[in-house]
Amino acid sequence: MLDNLDLNLALEKDDYKAQIESLMQELRVLQQACWEKKLPALFVLEGWAAAGKGLLVKKMVGYIDPRGFTVHPIWPATEAERQYPFLWRFWQKLPQSGTIGFFYHSWYTRVLEDRLFGRVAEAEVPIVMRQINAFERQLVDDGAAIGKFWIHISKKELKKRLKTAAADPLDAWRVRPEDWQQAKNYDQYATFAEEMFAQTSTGTAPWTLVEGNDQRWARVKVLTKMATTLTEALDRLQFRSPPPTLPPQEKLEPTEPDLLAQVDLSQSLSRDEYKEQLREEQTRLRELQLEIYQQQIPVLVVFEGWDAAGKGGAIKRLTDVLDPRSYIVSPFAAPTDEEKAHHYLWRFWRRLPPPGKIGIFDRTWYGRVLVERVEGYASETSWRQAYKEINEFEEQLTSAGYVLVKLWLHISSDEQLRRFEERQQNPFKNYKITAEDWRNREKEPFYYVAINQMIQRTSTPAAPWSIVAGNDKYYARVKVIQMVIQAIETELKRRK
Amino acid sequence: MLDNLDLNLALEKDDYKAQIESLMQELRVLQQACWEKKLPALFVLEGWAAAGKGLLVKKMVGYIDPRGFTVHPIWPATEAERQYPFLWRFWQKLPQSGTIGFFYHSWYTRVLEDRLFGRVAEAEVPIVMRQINAFERQLVDDGAAIGKFWIHISKKELKKRLKTAAADPLDAWRVRPEDWQQAKNYDQYATFAEEMFAQTSTGTAPWTLVEGNDQRWARVKVLTKMATTLTEALDRLQFRSPPPTLPPQEKLEPTEPDLLAQVDLSQSLSRDEYKEQLREEQTRLRELQLEIYQQQIPVLVVFEGWDAAGKGGAIKRLTDVLDPRSYIVSPFAAPTDEEKAHHYLWRFWRRLPPPGKIGIFDRTWYGRVLVERVEGYASETSWRQAYKEINEFEEQLTSAGYVLVKLWLHISSDEQLRRFEERQQNPFKNYKITAEDWRNREKEPFYYVAINQMIQRTSTPAAPWSIVAGNDKYYARVKVIQMVIQAIETELKRRK
Repeated sequence: MLDNLDLNLALEKDDYKAQIESLMQELRVLQQACWEKKLPALFVLEGWAAAGKGLLVKKMVGYIDPRGFTVHPIWPATEAERQYPFLWRFWQKLPQSGTIGFFYHSWYTRVLEDRLFGRVAEAEVPIVMRQINAFERQLVDDGAAIGKFWIHISKKELKKRLKTAAADPLDAWRVRPEDWQQAKNYDQYATFAEEMFAQTSTGTAPWTLVEGNDQRWARVKVLTKMATTLTEALDRLQFRSPPPTLPPQEKLEPTEPDLLAQVDLSQSLSRDEYKEQLREEQTRLRELQLEIYQQQIPVLVVFEGWDAAGKGGAIKRLTDVLDPRSYIVSPFAAPTDEEKAHHYLWRFWRRLPPPGKIGIFDRTWYGRVLVERVEGYASETSWRQAYKEINEFEEQLTSAGYVLVKLWLHISSDEQLRRFEERQQNPFKNYKITAEDWRNREKEPFYYVAINQMIQRTSTPAAPWSIVAGNDKYYARVKVIQMVIQAIETELKRRK
Repeated sequence: MLDNLDLNLALEKDDYKAQIESLMQELRVLQQACWEKKLPALFVLEGWAAAGKGLLVKKMVGYIDPRGFTVHPIWPATEAERQYPFLWRFWQKLPQSGTIGFFYHSWYTRVLEDRLFGRVAEAEVPIVMRQINAFERQLVDDGAAIGKFWIHISKKELKKRLKTAAADPLDAWRVRPEDWQQAKNYDQYATFAEEMFAQTSTGTAPWTLVEGNDQRWARVKVLTKMATTLTEALDRLQFRSPPPTLPPQEKLEPTEPDLLAQVDLSQSLSRDEYKEQLREEQTRLRELQLEIYQQQIPVLVVFEGWDAAGKGGAIKRLTDVLDPRSYIVSPFAAPTDEEKAHHYLWRFWRRLPPPGKIGIFDRTWYGRVLVERVEGYASETSWRQAYKEINEFEEQLTSAGYVLVKLWLHISSDEQLRRFEERQQNPFKNYKITAEDWRNREKEPFYYVAINQMIQRTSTPAAPWSIVAGNDKYYARVKVIQMVIQAIETELKRRK
């Protein structure tokens, strides 16, 4: 691919001036439109060292309001960043709605420089490519514009530029030892790049290869494509097809399994059994906590369940004997303004526990296919897409070594009613029950369908759901701890 | 002080059980009340290694809902954290309204362990103490509850516990080499602690010294004090005196200097002068940018000014020739939900530029004494306090090596009117003008007083205001760059 680029392409000064003038106007208007339509945009600059990426970023931002963008220079991941899935640090840096993020180097360093220097295992490369594609597709499906540029120069030109830069006192500091390595291994690096184009030039976020020997040509090409990318994303917003208006599904289809109905809700423990088993399991969990810490394994336990299913009590028993420095409980309610200005998965990425700790999420990304679906906050297209997005997200966690435990606390409708009424009557508990809980209860059939479909579609081998029978609180609390223990033990065995 | 503690104090099991039971009830109710009243609380645990701090945190959180607190174990600052003022990492960890943050070790490590191991210069210790006091007072003035505990054990007991722990396979990993050093230098460390109590046991956030030889005694003492601290903070909220209802100040007192009136607004540049000087200053700035990078100096330029004073255009010219990887522009509008759930300075701490970069803030913490004062969003007590809080904050920045440039862009009332009208008529600019701008303009006399008082009260030797004459845009843009250059050059000279 790179061989076919005509590196002799160039622009005369007058041509350049005329074209750049109108691009400048266009980009200003487009930035304004993105701001108004709350459209986030990402532009990635990759390519050879000394290919002029820095100057290009400068040109790209030169025509727009500096309050509406951020430039992210991406260097090798720090030790803290390497503790998380590799896309974690890029999730932290996503532009919020209406703003533009420029990435000078990007997540692609993982399949370029990291690969050249052996910082990523060859076997991992296809997985990384797939995760990158999922990442970009998720953003584009959420309305973002993505432009990716590879600035290409010939081997000869690269060497010449590095030598010139190294000789200039104002520029010498920019030339890293890695850059010389790149020149030395030009052909190898080019092969990596070609593979990267083949794997990640997708319909949603294609690569633009830029002939970089002539700077004027490169600028006009990049700025033109930047304008097109924004225009197309704005058009997509405008002409987004209206969400299908199917009536909400009140009953499962006969072909759909009713997983909730298969749960034996009569399972229970006597008070004595509970006390004994709870102590036993808690003790075991405490031992495992030490192993998690020593082996630096990240654990994430996610709690979902019907209102009044006993999530709070179960979390309390789970954490009771743990060292409070070893876990972090993150409750998620309705998203804040800042959270709403990002992809719905953003707030969960931000709160991932580091290795060695147990993160406990009280409600999660599954809100997308539960409350957001049932209440109509997410369009049908969006929540249907979410199954795939969630599976991809969880795959990234488990493949990065996370122990992921997904618990659905199930109670019968009668039991829920009994608990609601009890809460209402108990002055110490009635703050727990609101008009919203009663309203949700009226929508129970819709939730019943949504829950079943969620469990069915997001139970993957690496991240299965566990449905916990919750009518008896004693039984449920012990079961929750057992599920966590089991998951940790499985991971410990795998690592041996 | 420590010598006077009676380490023989102990509690019998029955006494303990009776007391702990009622504390448990009380803490649950108090946590609920904090949640409802949106009161944030911080509890700090310091003391000897093996004094049982870990177990105490466990007890403290044992009686409250795990979704309402976070435990922060504090270890030596990472390399990334050391790049910022030392309180920076604690600002990131502040509990949001309604929740509790437990600090297992805290900002006090700076005057304890860091001091023992020579990681902080002795001359810096008094400054650190003062900064800590300012930090805590700011939080308490904002309504937070703060409890600080020193868990004390004797030298003999410390050595005994370390030996026991080191011999237990489940506990041995907890004993760090630093802990043995602490035992070896017990008296030295105790002196540091005594100095710390003397300097930082303030009326707003006093230390509680806890006799730690007997665990039951220590627990009851800590939990009792925890309950008192929360109760007192809740009372303070309830009985907070109503803000004084003085009429807003429409005119400066005769004794108050009118700093704005002293500005010569007729200063201007011809187009040719502008072009030449702009190029000259921009070139100089670009050279300085390299020095900032090489010497890893953080620079923060803050922009305030009348509506339509030309902040956007000035920021554009300032950044025009800079490498986009070397600066970050952060515009601040009305705070988001998450920002509102924290101290008003929190969002600015979060966005501080790292060393080597230029941070540009478009509007700042001065909103507290401008728009929040004039519009009545902040009570009179709050905005009056803010002058001091801002001076303290800026002192922390400059003493950590920040170059801080504070610019007020000044234009006359007539010039503002002219620009408003021009914007209204220009279809490319009329998005810039809103009904709010016209409303603000009506409040001009109040702003005029507030601005003058702000400049007067927050112009400190380390962080002076510069008022830029803005009626002529050419003049203002060049002047802004000159002020930034001057500030950087002063710092470079200072460092030589």
